[in-house]
Amino acid sequence: MDISLNKQSSQPLYIQLFEQLKELIQQGVLPEDYKLPTIRELAKDLEVNNVTVVNAYKLLEDHKLIYKKIGSGTYVLPIEEKLSISGIISDEEEQREYDYNEEEGYIDFATASPDPRLFPMTDFKKAINDVIERDGGNAFMYHDSRGYLPLRSSIADYLSERTIEVGAEDVYIISGAQQGIDIIAKALLTNGDYVFVESPTYTGAVNVFKSRGARIVEIPLQNDGPDMKELEKLLLLIKPKFMYTMPNFQNPTGCSYSERKKKHLMLLCKKYKLLVVEDDYSGDLSYVERPAIPLKAYDKTDSVIYIKSFSKIFMPGLRVAFLIIPEHIKKMIASAKYMTDISTSGFMQRVLDLYLNRNILDEHIKYMKREYGVRYFEAVRAVKKYLRGALFNQPNGGLNLWIRLPEGVGSSKLYEYCRKNKVLITPGTVFLKGQDGEQFIRISFSGVDVPDITKGIAIIGNAMEELKKSSRLEF
Amino acid sequence: MDISLNKQSSQPLYIQLFEQLKELIQQGVLPEDYKLPTIRELAKDLEVNNVTVVNAYKLLEDHKLIYKKIGSGTYVLPIEEKLSISGIISDEEEQREYDYNEEEGYIDFATASPDPRLFPMTDFKKAINDVIERDGGNAFMYHDSRGYLPLRSSIADYLSERTIEVGAEDVYIISGAQQGIDIIAKALLTNGDYVFVESPTYTGAVNVFKSRGARIVEIPLQNDGPDMKELEKLLLLIKPKFMYTMPNFQNPTGCSYSERKKKHLMLLCKKYKLLVVEDDYSGDLSYVERPAIPLKAYDKTDSVIYIKSFSKIFMPGLRVAFLIIPEHIKKMIASAKYMTDISTSGFMQRVLDLYLNRNILDEHIKYMKREYGVRYFEAVRAVKKYLRGALFNQPNGGLNLWIRLPEGVGSSKLYEYCRKNKVLITPGTVFLKGQDGEQFIRISFSGVDVPDITKGIAIIGNAMEELKKSSRLEF
Repeated sequence: MDISLNKQSSQPLYIQLFEQLKELIQQGVLPEDYKLPTIRELAKDLEVNNVTVVNAYKLLEDHKLIYKKIGSGTYVLPIEEKLSISGIISDEEEQREYDYNEEEGYIDFATASPDPRLFPMTDFKKAINDVIERDGGNAFMYHDSRGYLPLRSSIADYLSERTIEVGAEDVYIISGAQQGIDIIAKALLTNGDYVFVESPTYTGAVNVFKSRGARIVEIPLQNDGPDMKELEKLLLLIKPKFMYTMPNFQNPTGCSYSERKKKHLMLLCKKYKLLVVEDDYSGDLSYVERPAIPLKAYDKTDSVIYIKSFSKIFMPGLRVAFLIIPEHIKKMIASAKYMTDISTSGFMQRVLDLYLNRNILDEHIKYMKREYGVRYFEAVRAVKKYLRGALFNQPNGGLNLWIRLPEGVGSSKLYEYCRKNKVLITPGTVFLKGQDGEQFIRISFSGVDVPDITKGIAIIGNAMEELKKSSRLEF
Repeated sequence: MDISLNKQSSQPLYIQLFEQLKELIQQGVLPEDYKLPTIRELAKDLEVNNVTVVNAYKLLEDHKLIYKKIGSGTYVLPIEEKLSISGIISDEEEQREYDYNEEEGYIDFATASPDPRLFPMTDFKKAINDVIERDGGNAFMYHDSRGYLPLRSSIADYLSERTIEVGAEDVYIISGAQQGIDIIAKALLTNGDYVFVESPTYTGAVNVFKSRGARIVEIPLQNDGPDMKELEKLLLLIKPKFMYTMPNFQNPTGCSYSERKKKHLMLLCKKYKLLVVEDDYSGDLSYVERPAIPLKAYDKTDSVIYIKSFSKIFMPGLRVAFLIIPEHIKKMIASAKYMTDISTSGFMQRVLDLYLNRNILDEHIKYMKREYGVRYFEAVRAVKKYLRGALFNQPNGGLNLWIRLPEGVGSSKLYEYCRKNKVLITPGTVFLKGQDGEQFIRISFSGVDVPDITKGIAIIGNAMEELKKSSRLEF
């Protein structure tokens, strides 16, 4: 069979394999009732994990292209049966979980993704079925563009237990935090407007602001938050439409604003009528006793637009997040949301609402904090042990470590070295221009399990030593 | 109890009632173990349907705020029990379906929404559970921004059976057609660009183009498509970024381009390097034997961006649609999609994929066509019978009738008259400026069942007669 898989592709291997087998079947290259290779044979042949082939075969079965005979093997399904077959024979191997890391053989510190094995699928499945039972087809109708009111109301209750006092009318549901950024840009920015951002910051936000023609002004970050002197100096010169911030466990630096700086920023909001966007993408994930207090909790002048995603603490696939909107921009935000996608999936909103009301979200967050906490402390330990000469602040929360490399080690080269050794990291050049970016790497530990954290960081350490050696040779 | 419901609000009554009761319970106005009025008492008191109260009580139960004692009544749940209660006692009334129309007492010809009672909930529930069984937590991870490849592949297969020849790599998954419009605008439009649109057209699209600073040029629609002479005259003067069209069962007019005009438009695409956006929001819904052929099927020069939604033929709540993208703009579209919401719900994509592969979507479309067909023919019959002096073309498909009113009847006044009589229509002024808009109304029949179509259109007829009389009196 003529199959070639690209291990560098963003497309998982099992999907590439599925695609190519499908093509071969549909073109008749693999005829009806043709016996496919066994899982082990094909995996060996293609130099992939067994699970890659298992998952590809599973998809082909669901697509009614192949069938299994127990104790015999897997065959191409004759066309006339493709419409009538219904049950799918399962075998032991099918029970194994997907695992992209294992599958592709990479240890991935580059993606700040949660680990799907930690998702609460049993509870979630129950909630999904309960909503279908309760609401029937109405769960799949168009919904109020601002969100499903019972969910907005539940979120307001949820927040009031967490030092943020708002009403349901202040909460707008969106399809993920990225959409929140997009909607805010759409509502507030026109060509030539200024936007202040932290430096370094999340590039996915900056790209959105630039796409609306905004001019970006970078405010340097210190260990305890933005450089306030620099910020006030710039506020005297420029009136930005807003400042985009991540006050807790910032991405990529992991740094959190001190209470003093949070309060100071609120004073500047009042003094300069500054609007601040707070992207709270991982504030729940504190691994020490003291919780992280959102900037919004200090907001007495209705100056903070608060964006909260459930992607990191729950599941990215929900595509449900929310905004808290200051009164004077509600209309603009509502109209921008409508233009963007009319409304967020009402079904997922109803499921999340049930989830919040059964108090299982809090339980789940506790569980995620425990799991990620173990990973965090192992990552810190391993960086101290293996990355000699590297410097970093311990964020005590969030999903990333931001590491200053020792002299003579550039992040672009380190990235290449690590990649060759099947470890993915994010070079600082993604976040900072030129030489500044070469000094840093970001390590996201949330999607990697503990043994791989140790192993992966040891590999980064080796790569650093190699680079140090070769840089000495160059001189 | 101090409850006031607003029947004019876009918020369903049961949700308003839920909100207010929740407030009263949380403030302690209704104390623990307080016995709530029976469903009938409260419904009578508030002058709403029983089902409104049933649904509000149902939500309160799910929110752990009230409980039922069989044979006794409904009570406010004591706080300490709010966390521990698990099962929800159901009663007969709870089995009844929600029904917004019935609930609010309006016959709604204003919203081109499908009827939730027609949704295939049993099949869909099975598909949802099958995906969770098969894919577990991976279904809720981030997905490829362009879409889940097996679904893109299934859609390509689906289209090739429908005269559109594309590959999986040409299909991009989006979160609803509105998002498609937004992404296209984001990828292609900058301040001052020209966009051609049909006149009249879908205002939700025009607003998006304007928000990107585009200048809108209207091309008049005739019964068989755009005024081609006018279009070519304008193309000689102006180079638009694209032309936004609905070539089949256009919204609001219901008109379809003739085959001749479809081919002519394709020639203009070649001659003027014109890019056309085809919004195929209801092309599947032909009520006569001949199916509607998409413009994209005539596209030999890769000049058509095709947007296809499943909202009208399946369920709006899916929030899954797709684009077919010409090669030269793929990168721009992919980056705009990423900026917009990273990716569409992978879970819903996987469910839809299963749905397509089990061949149940086609079965469902046939069913929807039959159901909507009956409504369409009844609407046509009733308009002919009751709206004397009104003129309209029979679209033979889609969701709307576009009706020219007789002299002396203006659409704004007719809208007000009908509204007072609990019938909602869309006045032409929503789509056309000034006096032109006063000549038309749009009747969307898809969300109304047959007896209400007859009754509702008779009421519109009466309102027209009243208006004719009073206009004669004015002269």
